[in-house]
Amino acid sequence: MTQGGNLLRDVPDAGAGEVVHKILAAPRMRIERIVSLGQASPPGFWYDQPQAEWVLLLAGAARLRFEDEPEARPLVAGDWVNIAARRRHRVEWTDPARPTVWLAVFHD
Amino acid sequence: MTQGGNLLRDVPDAGAGEVVHKILAAPRMRIERIVSLGQASPPGFWYDQPQAEWVLLLAGAARLRFEDEPEARPLVAGDWVNIAARRRHRVEWTDPARPTVWLAVFHD
Repeated sequence: MTQGGNLLRDVPDAGAGEVVHKILAAPRMRIERIVSLGQASPPGFWYDQPQAEWVLLLAGAARLRFEDEPEARPLVAGDWVNIAARRRHRVEWTDPARPTVWLAVFHD
Repeated sequence: MTQGGNLLRDVPDAGAGEVVHKILAAPRMRIERIVSLGQASPPGFWYDQPQAEWVLLLAGAARLRFEDEPEARPLVAGDWVNIAARRRHRVEWTDPARPTVWLAVFHD
């Protein structure tokens, strides 16, 4: 794991599946870059995570759905959401025409 | 503190001084957005922080100097650096012509 880099350069082709890079691992906290290209969570699937996740969209476009909300939230660059631990959520959509780059900070 | 927002919208005018917004406070970790407009650390000043800081440039341009490196590192959008606790550093320069938006994750 390096101590520096650029999250928007050398964005991998995620056409065959989301690409996750570990950026930082610290006690009880980790940072990842996730690149999507048209992926969505499988039908009926909900993330149900033991840790909270602070997520920031760096590029692209997505729709994030919470089970306890009637409609998905559209996300564009700069948008962030703090997802509480165990709050069930799913990715409804990511833009198929360009990479969507997420920054995810998992934390207590 | 809200549970969502956009870091690139409603960027405040930092002409009179850097503007810091707390985004998230968690156990032993916090996330801030810092907006600069031409500011630099005072001559001879070095940050010497008890926590590590993972910093990501979201917009603008800056130069970050470490005391143990001969030259400042130029930073553009997408660049990140993990600054170890107690590693002395300073901001040599931020673009005076447009806002520089930093995301700072302080962590153990």
